[in-house]
Amino acid sequence: MTRIPGSADALLTDLYQLTMAAAYFGEDMRETAVFELFVRRLPPTRRFLIAAGLERALEFIGALRFTATQLEFLARQGSFSQPFLDYLGAFRFTGTVHAMPEGSPFFAEEPILRVTAPIIEAQLLESRIINIIHFQTLIASKAARCVLAAGGRRLIDFGMRRAHEGDAALFAARAAYLAGFDATATVEAGRRWGIPISGTVAHSYIEAHDDEDRAFRNFTMGRPAHTTLLIDTYDTGHAAERVARLQSELRAQRSTHGIDSVRIDSGDLEVLAKDVRRILDEHGCQDIRIVLSGGLDELRIAALVSSGAPADAFGVGTSLDVSADAPALDMAYKLQMYAGRPRRKRSPGKATWPGAKQVFREYGPDGVALRDRIVLDGERAAGTPLLAEVMKSGRPSATSPSLETIRRDCSRHIRALPKYVLQLDDGGSAAFSVIRSAALEALAAGAE
Amino acid sequence: MTRIPGSADALLTDLYQLTMAAAYFGEDMRETAVFELFVRRLPPTRRFLIAAGLERALEFIGALRFTATQLEFLARQGSFSQPFLDYLGAFRFTGTVHAMPEGSPFFAEEPILRVTAPIIEAQLLESRIINIIHFQTLIASKAARCVLAAGGRRLIDFGMRRAHEGDAALFAARAAYLAGFDATATVEAGRRWGIPISGTVAHSYIEAHDDEDRAFRNFTMGRPAHTTLLIDTYDTGHAAERVARLQSELRAQRSTHGIDSVRIDSGDLEVLAKDVRRILDEHGCQDIRIVLSGGLDELRIAALVSSGAPADAFGVGTSLDVSADAPALDMAYKLQMYAGRPRRKRSPGKATWPGAKQVFREYGPDGVALRDRIVLDGERAAGTPLLAEVMKSGRPSATSPSLETIRRDCSRHIRALPKYVLQLDDGGSAAFSVIRSAALEALAAGAE
Repeated sequence: MTRIPGSADALLTDLYQLTMAAAYFGEDMRETAVFELFVRRLPPTRRFLIAAGLERALEFIGALRFTATQLEFLARQGSFSQPFLDYLGAFRFTGTVHAMPEGSPFFAEEPILRVTAPIIEAQLLESRIINIIHFQTLIASKAARCVLAAGGRRLIDFGMRRAHEGDAALFAARAAYLAGFDATATVEAGRRWGIPISGTVAHSYIEAHDDEDRAFRNFTMGRPAHTTLLIDTYDTGHAAERVARLQSELRAQRSTHGIDSVRIDSGDLEVLAKDVRRILDEHGCQDIRIVLSGGLDELRIAALVSSGAPADAFGVGTSLDVSADAPALDMAYKLQMYAGRPRRKRSPGKATWPGAKQVFREYGPDGVALRDRIVLDGERAAGTPLLAEVMKSGRPSATSPSLETIRRDCSRHIRALPKYVLQLDDGGSAAFSVIRSAALEALAAGAE
Repeated sequence: MTRIPGSADALLTDLYQLTMAAAYFGEDMRETAVFELFVRRLPPTRRFLIAAGLERALEFIGALRFTATQLEFLARQGSFSQPFLDYLGAFRFTGTVHAMPEGSPFFAEEPILRVTAPIIEAQLLESRIINIIHFQTLIASKAARCVLAAGGRRLIDFGMRRAHEGDAALFAARAAYLAGFDATATVEAGRRWGIPISGTVAHSYIEAHDDEDRAFRNFTMGRPAHTTLLIDTYDTGHAAERVARLQSELRAQRSTHGIDSVRIDSGDLEVLAKDVRRILDEHGCQDIRIVLSGGLDELRIAALVSSGAPADAFGVGTSLDVSADAPALDMAYKLQMYAGRPRRKRSPGKATWPGAKQVFREYGPDGVALRDRIVLDGERAAGTPLLAEVMKSGRPSATSPSLETIRRDCSRHIRALPKYVLQLDDGGSAAFSVIRSAALEALAAGAE
């Protein structure tokens, strides 16, 4: 996944960004534009979203360059002038970016990122900025729900194989960890970001051996310790008994090898987990933990937890890595100001709020968030401003926080949301209160 | 998106693949395994799937290497022996691969790819092979439905921004084109595969100008020809009149500039398209085409077509690039043979058919497919075998077909499916007939 720094992504954009840039260039439109990134409305199954992807977005912005090969391809299209291509050849982003930190909970119509730059520069970022931030935000928001459902039990990302290609697999692991997952099975995510990696064994390993007992013994003796065995290939109850006998033997031999946990990946997980727990306990294996996986999402996890299924950890795969119930967010990057004048799109169902904006979150005396207030940039309001400057004159304003810091802050911010926002059922009428300042309302009325 | 050839993807895998490989290595299990890739069941909204992603999968297999940096990371985990790490350092895939060509329609439980190799080699491919082929198959299958819905009208992929990160954006463009789309807005997909690129203009461009008329004029005069104007920023009807007047003026001046089409991106597309068509026609602009976009999927396209909406082209975005109604397929890569013995997983709901298999498609005298028959490899059956050898001893058996060839073959194969398979409504009872040979049934019974 190593990239040639900088140049690689310039053509990973929609053609119209380049066409519009060429038009602005030709018309000599060089004034400052303000674009904001926001989600128009939340999916029915989300009561809040978690901002994620900023670190990668800023890397993209800072490194955006057009190589000679890319310019040659554009020249061959026959619709770009040589002066414009020369402009692209010298392109550097010189603007300012404000954003909510990664890990921030946010709501519909709140700007999570604002770009202030000459219009061509701000326009050229659009497609890839959405592409980067949309995805990690999508996954972090799904993962946060799994964390709420799991009630403190361990969560492991198992979704790599059905994530949408390589980048998605990697950044899903990052976004899930940021939102409170404990580990991922994706090795490269461990290497790249230090996320704890976790892995067990697949059915194929069990099947490749002539019998299950042999497979269990060989795997356990071949591992230094902390082995997890998969016990649902043939008969889960029989397999649990095999595991318990093997563990007892190893204990009797004072072996350094041992079984840390068993994984159940199919069938009625509640019933099987209870059976397996009973079998293990009857054989004195109270120390062996149970990992459940197989088609899990936050609703199934919540049901397993509330049924008292004795699960110590959950592996969550496809439903996390593709955010299966809501595989896209209605995220948009819209022009709010140009040349000092507010701009407003009025397309039916897609009207925007004009002007450069800030969001304040107000907390009650108990530390629980009361409401958000969207205001015009520069207005004062009660509470804490959520957007901060992260890039100035094309350079990062500060070093990015570590992933561990983001993860800790994310957990703290989520815990500060009111209880009704943290419920897993559909939002209904109890949405978190987001209001707008009088000045913003007046500006929008004036821009009609 | 340029990669360092070969080495880059080795750790883009699930940890358990490496753990199992280490176990096989330690147990000296070097016999030949047969793994097959298939989809367990079709999503309710799919009556067929389109195989895609093989070219990239074979590139991955041929180039899979472990670099010193990657091996150091694995060594630091403390659970891999030095002899095993040395084995990985010298790793090359040496096996054989059979597969259905890209663009092949297929059905539940049919193997679309079969790997025959020493078990470690075949096992190490699993996560990434699924990751690659699952995604392009997912998108090609969704795109094929859009093509059926559009009834010959042009289709353009607009989905880059909400695709799941960079790789997904690129390979969605490829998969959609392969299945019959006509163009993509994603510039890099054009550069990389020669897919026609298409782009118009965004609302921000219109809003950045002090009035819409100025925006239309400037954009049209700044382009060599074939301009598409976006007409729903403020009032679509008024905008259509502006476009018609501008076109008439340009004609009167015998200008080389001109408007090729208009795009409507919001509102009631059927009503607006009819209004706009009428306005344009009344002004003598029968030559200006109408492009519709904005939340379209195959069902909305079918509804627009059947309502007589005068659309010449459709831009399809998010619903295509994330396959919104079915964002994942139940695709699995399962061990079917090891050391010459068939293997069978019997987990509830996830039981597999053992043995190395082939699929034959039988056609009637009218050229329409009658049924598929899954047989044991080496059996003869009526019709055409769908899997062919694509890699032998770790080397490609032939050069990959061109994307244009795949696209043409895909269209031909889809046209040969019976009409009821090509309907867009949920599958219900009228599934395409897939049967199994007596020998396969007997083998499965024996492996119970």
